[in-house]
Amino acid sequence: MIQTYNSTLLDNAVAELAKLPGIGSKTALRLALHLLRRDVEEVTSLANAITIMRNNINYCKTCHNISEHEECKICSDRRRDKSIVCVVENIKDVIAIESTGEHRGVYHVLGGLISPLDAIGPSDLEIESLVNRIANENISEVILALSPTMEGDTTGFYIFRRLADTGIKISILARGVSVGNDLEYTDELTLGRSIHNRIPFSDTINC
Amino acid sequence: MIQTYNSTLLDNAVAELAKLPGIGSKTALRLALHLLRRDVEEVTSLANAITIMRNNINYCKTCHNISEHEECKICSDRRRDKSIVCVVENIKDVIAIESTGEHRGVYHVLGGLISPLDAIGPSDLEIESLVNRIANENISEVILALSPTMEGDTTGFYIFRRLADTGIKISILARGVSVGNDLEYTDELTLGRSIHNRIPFSDTINC
Repeated sequence: MIQTYNSTLLDNAVAELAKLPGIGSKTALRLALHLLRRDVEEVTSLANAITIMRNNINYCKTCHNISEHEECKICSDRRRDKSIVCVVENIKDVIAIESTGEHRGVYHVLGGLISPLDAIGPSDLEIESLVNRIANENISEVILALSPTMEGDTTGFYIFRRLADTGIKISILARGVSVGNDLEYTDELTLGRSIHNRIPFSDTINC
Repeated sequence: MIQTYNSTLLDNAVAELAKLPGIGSKTALRLALHLLRRDVEEVTSLANAITIMRNNINYCKTCHNISEHEECKICSDRRRDKSIVCVVENIKDVIAIESTGEHRGVYHVLGGLISPLDAIGPSDLEIESLVNRIANENISEVILALSPTMEGDTTGFYIFRRLADTGIKISILARGVSVGNDLEYTDELTLGRSIHNRIPFSDTINC
């Protein structure tokens, strides 16, 4: 804790702000001095917003997305297709996929990925509840929308193995060149896969 | 305000966090989701630290530095030389200069710089109180430690003119090449000034 600001109150605020991810002590000081210049009401409303959020947000009992009620807005939306479940790592991925508007089904938030290095195993994630959902609900397809990383692939493979007996359709996100990216800067693994998984040109016309 | 997070509580927290300087809506979302994963106590202690700071910090009646009492720690420190006043733009500059350990005098925080473009004139700053301080206290030197920018130079020149009659010693920070910087990357104005204001080599040996 840096203590050169002539005020323990400022020191405390800086120390607390510096605990936030990506915020070092210099940025924390800048934020604290900014807050000092704001109206008391503004600072109070920030403080209230974060405490009220922390104290009142719950998790959806079905998909483990954030929710203010027992069931989240997506699960309780009657227009969503409950038979297609998109499996994601965390809430940020739900937001990212929702922003594309391409998924009209529901979600299942794992709460992380299998990562032996971080001592995160399958039992630490919401995989058992996914298996139960598939056993009890009328689900026709599971989309594994996990990051194309070692952890994402491991988790995807584990889920694939767990669901193999169910005969359910399991798909993963297409891997290929990014829209708008220069081809010469695409890594060879991605480029290789995008040649291997090439799609008929006629498919792109309907998009 | 972005409203795609399925929770007005999260939306509110993101909107409040995004008001902080340098924090866009994506970073605000990351911070909000980070806070969601923390313990209630941690979030409460952050919220309390900023509100308590905002509600209880005052400004020193002498130098306008932040303070928890009538007079700040620097002004009330008997070891500081009250006859040398270092004039700075804001509290951050006090912290920066304090961290060098080179100034054993006191400060005067202007609260900004003269900037006609931003409609900040001399009367918006603590210049009148500086003139009063010099009239009433036993001050021998004023160090204008202002940024070497248009606004800093304008403010410095204004203060210089206001204090010209007092016959007080007025100095500014030395301008020259930065310690540790490659000479070839120094801009020509700075390099030119550092040649013009060259110092005897013997002076550097005592440093």
